[in-house]
Amino acid sequence: MSRFSGVLVPVVTPYDAHLNPDPGRWITFCRGLLAEGAGGLAVFGTTSEANSLSGAERMRLLEQLIAAGVPGDRLLVGAGACSITEAAELVRHAGGCGCGGVLVLPPFYYKAVTDQGIYDFVAAVLDRAGVAVPVYLYHFPRLAGVGYGIDLIDRLCRAFPAVIAGLKDSTGQADHTLALLNSFPNLAIFPGSEAFLLDALRAGAAGCISATANVNLRAIAGLCRDWQASDAAAAQARVLACRRLFESVPTIAALKSVIAARLADPAWRRVRPPLVALDPQDEQRLLAALAAGNFPMLAGWTTDACRSADDRDNA
Amino acid sequence: MSRFSGVLVPVVTPYDAHLNPDPGRWITFCRGLLAEGAGGLAVFGTTSEANSLSGAERMRLLEQLIAAGVPGDRLLVGAGACSITEAAELVRHAGGCGCGGVLVLPPFYYKAVTDQGIYDFVAAVLDRAGVAVPVYLYHFPRLAGVGYGIDLIDRLCRAFPAVIAGLKDSTGQADHTLALLNSFPNLAIFPGSEAFLLDALRAGAAGCISATANVNLRAIAGLCRDWQASDAAAAQARVLACRRLFESVPTIAALKSVIAARLADPAWRRVRPPLVALDPQDEQRLLAALAAGNFPMLAGWTTDACRSADDRDNA
Repeated sequence: MSRFSGVLVPVVTPYDAHLNPDPGRWITFCRGLLAEGAGGLAVFGTTSEANSLSGAERMRLLEQLIAAGVPGDRLLVGAGACSITEAAELVRHAGGCGCGGVLVLPPFYYKAVTDQGIYDFVAAVLDRAGVAVPVYLYHFPRLAGVGYGIDLIDRLCRAFPAVIAGLKDSTGQADHTLALLNSFPNLAIFPGSEAFLLDALRAGAAGCISATANVNLRAIAGLCRDWQASDAAAAQARVLACRRLFESVPTIAALKSVIAARLADPAWRRVRPPLVALDPQDEQRLLAALAAGNFPMLAGWTTDACRSADDRDNA
Repeated sequence: MSRFSGVLVPVVTPYDAHLNPDPGRWITFCRGLLAEGAGGLAVFGTTSEANSLSGAERMRLLEQLIAAGVPGDRLLVGAGACSITEAAELVRHAGGCGCGGVLVLPPFYYKAVTDQGIYDFVAAVLDRAGVAVPVYLYHFPRLAGVGYGIDLIDRLCRAFPAVIAGLKDSTGQADHTLALLNSFPNLAIFPGSEAFLLDALRAGAAGCISATANVNLRAIAGLCRDWQASDAAAAQARVLACRRLFESVPTIAALKSVIAARLADPAWRRVRPPLVALDPQDEQRLLAALAAGNFPMLAGWTTDACRSADDRDNA
């Protein structure tokens, strides 16, 4: 089973003036990220506002991305849904599109559910999907309210050894990621943050899947590539300092604000409810802090790199 | 705008052997509840495992229920979804089916969202749905992780006075329900429990929407109807004592176990992941406690009342 590695970008999703997904801007942005060194694109995760999109919207976007020539094997596709029906449909669709993997949230409405219930969910989804696409478990208990504990991961790996390929750990806790790396050396494990990427790589992490890679990919991918270099600790400190600026504001809206500013394309600021666009004052403060810290955003991109060919609402 | 009142039953959803919804059993059960005195049916809420169903599954079931002759105006249809796209589709569909109202959860994936974000969500859903179906806000912060606070409800009522008809308060906290009744005398407010129904009715509640009404409807509806009678306090104590038995076990699975036992129809025990069926020992203990307390379940129903005409997998 092939595995992802490096920095996978959980790509933000742009919207048009009616708050419908904007495939033009999105595809251009996806291409740019791959050109800049992304190990893959983790489309339709939390940073992508995937749970604010319908399943039909996600599947349509994926088809458009692949039709535009982006290779499916570079795509780790979020298949988060609360029902076995919808999750299985998303997994089957991603597999049918030739995608390199699916990122599977546990069902996130009911709380205090049992490991058995989550196990049954994953088993039912795989059974219904009926395709052999590598599965990455998406552990994000702060948002999902439920998660994949060590015992449950172990049970899933034993039951589906040819399917469970890896895990994204979005706890943000280095100790937890390191414990997972220790327990599951055969899984491709990605912390959901670059905050402790160096430690994670030294312990065998496959890379990271981090929201801030949308704007700071070159620096994070550089650390991921050169983690054995003598200046790796300094590179780690740099990407962490940049990340902290995004953690002090609503992160997803902030990423979109920075992209909008960097590309001089205000459409990028749009988010879907329940998120709200970043307050203009917060945006100015963030941009100033990024400039003061000499953190180049979308480093290497030209201003036109992310402009959609069918740009609809920008002067 | 017509309003629901009385005991609305959040109907449990039966499944066939493949864990697909079982419309036959469901429709028969819905009819039975209406015949037994339900003020309406709150289909596709938490107790219905609605978020374990796809939108397509919910819409298909609703169409089948209405095609079977159940009047749409008796149905308060859960339209909970995390995306404006899906929620709007469910609202539009329910309105098109002539349903009496829709029960709208806030989007429940992202946490720590703002009132503005939830307001934007509701506004976008109503705008996209484009139908004039009464909206009931569904406040269940323990499961949704977000909720409708007093300020937000007030703002929604002012913005959509012809649309926001009521609210279901599933906090389980009498103080909160009473505060809502005090703040919003023009809304039809339903506590999500019969535990303090008498106090709520005295303060102007429209009734209740309670999981245990699936099995204890006659008693709860009796209290709701005769709340000014001299023995109302005793009736309140009785329904509360029964409810406590269901709160000591996983409630949804327990309701289904009791229905299965009462109707001698094991298929009713099925739940969809992430829920799991009640442990047989817990079921036996619950049934014994109900018998010991002299709490008749599905009182008034004949054993055959809930058997589906196209019964597939029961001897």
